[in-house]
Amino acid sequence: MTDGALETHLVATAERRLARYLDFLRIPSISGIPEHAGDCRRAADQLAGDLRAAGLEHVDVSETGGHPIVYADWLHAAGAPTVLLYGHYDVQPVDPLDEWQAPPFEPIVRDGRVLARGASDDKSNISIALAAAEALIATRGALPVNLRFVFEGEEESSSVHLEPWLAGNAARLAADVALVADSGFFAGNLPAITVGLRGLAAAEIHVRGPFQDVHSGVFGGAIENPINALASIIAGLKGADGRIRIPGFYDDVVPLSDAERVALAALPLDEEALRLELDVPALVGESGWTTTERRGARPTLDVNGIWGGFSGEGSKTIIPGRAHAKITCRLVADQDPDRIFAHLRDYVMQIAPPGVRVEVVSTGGGRPTLTPHDQPATRAYARALEATFGRAPLFVREGGSVPVAASFASILGLPVTVMGFMPPNGNFHAPNEWMDMANFETGIRALAAFFDEFAANPGA
Amino acid sequence: MTDGALETHLVATAERRLARYLDFLRIPSISGIPEHAGDCRRAADQLAGDLRAAGLEHVDVSETGGHPIVYADWLHAAGAPTVLLYGHYDVQPVDPLDEWQAPPFEPIVRDGRVLARGASDDKSNISIALAAAEALIATRGALPVNLRFVFEGEEESSSVHLEPWLAGNAARLAADVALVADSGFFAGNLPAITVGLRGLAAAEIHVRGPFQDVHSGVFGGAIENPINALASIIAGLKGADGRIRIPGFYDDVVPLSDAERVALAALPLDEEALRLELDVPALVGESGWTTTERRGARPTLDVNGIWGGFSGEGSKTIIPGRAHAKITCRLVADQDPDRIFAHLRDYVMQIAPPGVRVEVVSTGGGRPTLTPHDQPATRAYARALEATFGRAPLFVREGGSVPVAASFASILGLPVTVMGFMPPNGNFHAPNEWMDMANFETGIRALAAFFDEFAANPGA
Repeated sequence: MTDGALETHLVATAERRLARYLDFLRIPSISGIPEHAGDCRRAADQLAGDLRAAGLEHVDVSETGGHPIVYADWLHAAGAPTVLLYGHYDVQPVDPLDEWQAPPFEPIVRDGRVLARGASDDKSNISIALAAAEALIATRGALPVNLRFVFEGEEESSSVHLEPWLAGNAARLAADVALVADSGFFAGNLPAITVGLRGLAAAEIHVRGPFQDVHSGVFGGAIENPINALASIIAGLKGADGRIRIPGFYDDVVPLSDAERVALAALPLDEEALRLELDVPALVGESGWTTTERRGARPTLDVNGIWGGFSGEGSKTIIPGRAHAKITCRLVADQDPDRIFAHLRDYVMQIAPPGVRVEVVSTGGGRPTLTPHDQPATRAYARALEATFGRAPLFVREGGSVPVAASFASILGLPVTVMGFMPPNGNFHAPNEWMDMANFETGIRALAAFFDEFAANPGA
Repeated sequence: MTDGALETHLVATAERRLARYLDFLRIPSISGIPEHAGDCRRAADQLAGDLRAAGLEHVDVSETGGHPIVYADWLHAAGAPTVLLYGHYDVQPVDPLDEWQAPPFEPIVRDGRVLARGASDDKSNISIALAAAEALIATRGALPVNLRFVFEGEEESSSVHLEPWLAGNAARLAADVALVADSGFFAGNLPAITVGLRGLAAAEIHVRGPFQDVHSGVFGGAIENPINALASIIAGLKGADGRIRIPGFYDDVVPLSDAERVALAALPLDEEALRLELDVPALVGESGWTTTERRGARPTLDVNGIWGGFSGEGSKTIIPGRAHAKITCRLVADQDPDRIFAHLRDYVMQIAPPGVRVEVVSTGGGRPTLTPHDQPATRAYARALEATFGRAPLFVREGGSVPVAASFASILGLPVTVMGFMPPNGNFHAPNEWMDMANFETGIRALAAFFDEFAANPGA
């Protein structure tokens, strides 16, 4: 399905489109850091302006109680299906800042890549969707499908206001499918469709020892050390076999079928290349499962940060008053974040050593997603990817979390197709995040092709 | 042994003496933080000036390669014994700064206390020794003993240059006893003489995982998390019974005799008051030993600080690239810091999980001290304390470390008596460090009385 006018238009507007994308990347819309609330609003306003300019209608920077949700639609394709396309304009924090090759909000274009925080996750997918709609409207005066854009600003901080907003706006969100545009390609930058996404349960553990830091000589030996106590709690959460030891943790995990294990085993994975890329002495994980399964089909528990006592240069011989850790579990279908948090909290309280006071606080969560391979939008998207990228996509279980994917199913009752064009090694959530500009440009064509495919085959 | 002229002089000069002490406290001579090197030198210069003004001779700010050592002497007591008195003018770091009631280097005088970093440890003892010598010289024109002052500036950062300096200056340091003035009173502010000091072995553990922080969804499950790994290492160092599990750790510990256990049991200790003061749910420690024994007569292992990953507000779903911990072991006679570090390093490397790279670095150490109760200077000091404070001193094993005490024995071959007037709950190494001014003033009388006592009875 080639469209000469569309292609001519896209080529002619490439430079302007890149400039707009770079402007978008210059806004430090870090949702998880309160000081950046104004930047998040600025990103929303800029996005809304771009949507209006592109020909979208009913553009609305919608208040949520947190960072706003940007809504826009185009609903003149009478008789055609309606696609709700979701993305997020917020980004992860940037530290450790000194590991970036360039300031994270001063994008650099080099060797076909754009380097900046948010370059892939998720400002690439938003910019691609905007460009696809804009080009179709510009060249045809119309879209082949009805389209609703929902771009939130809190995905990187647990999407706390999205579910209430979806519930409150369900009437104006009627659609045939939710296209969750927050994913990417498989290793080797192979076209891929994400059929599984992990959920998330986040918690903080706070350990209190003495009322303040005290002398480790005067009191050492007579009281529990909060850091030692926290270490023993964390160590107790996982066995040497990589299995999580929290009672009930695995209760609701849907067993992998033999067929899916075979399908996952067929996904290309060069373990030695991955090991070298990450620069670790060995890949390790839960015994009894392959690396592919561990990354996408099995739940995990990772400490994301730990702090307590003296971390400056030199030494300070204290027993610290406090120690803290941030922990996230990645969940798989059908684990429920609230139940997992409760299991975690109960177990931490159970194994906490005497002599300290321990508190476990939930800091967010999201449900996992598991999508059928054969739903119409997924099939249409697979055909569009093959037509534009020249290769049939892989169907993968992604290790990351897009909890909102589950929200569109549970709140709006929509089938969900997860899509996106991020390069698999694009350093999202890490220093030196980057986007592949070939993926970006071809992605625009793929998404336009998907709209045509889905309009032509809405039921198969 | 009352000395009316001395007392009259001390009363008349109290205000000026306090002002000098406060000026000394205003210098942030934090030896462990390189930015404060200039402050350490300033403290040394000020101290040298005060020693000259007090009538001490051969005052020398002696280069060491690190912070200087201040030397001074008065050697005109022909036929009398020679006392080498040691103290340190450097102080601990001050964080967490927000827990201080006032800026740590802007001393406050209130309710008979002086609050400032270093107010007790160890600028009180230095100031007391200076005042005692000054008052004796001012009122008698002479000291009853020959006196050498050695004031170092690196006690709080492992005294790295002191031993070489002692060895290099042994010829000019001839003495009959080393009086190590870096200790204090017992709980309840009871006069005390420290007969045991713990040693120290300090180390840092550095754990390297992936080359940088990476996405905990994309990679979680497939690689070891450096914080989880560090927690399991730390947890492996001690058992739930409080016993340190490092092979060989206890090999060289001198067993406590039944007599000393009885003596230690006789020391007053209100455990519930201690628990409430520290605000911990329970006192806990190595099974089989009393709290007094755990604090003074048994070795310990404490994590002084831990850091890695994201510790800011909000969440960041990463597997961090690095995790770090600072650890110190308090040692008892006859544990050797170098051997203990080697045992620690070997065991950490042995229990480190696969999938990460671990490095263990020594960051200093010092030998423990155990002093006979009946050596002449100790007995003279006990009599001086009883005469001035009105109560016979307790003989205690102090949990803290003054590694230099062992250095005077091993390098100069001197008997060592550990002394000092710090209040036992003076928050040294912690926020809101303070000094009891009654201890300070009576301490000057006690030290003057000691010089007389020791001159009169140098051999018994």
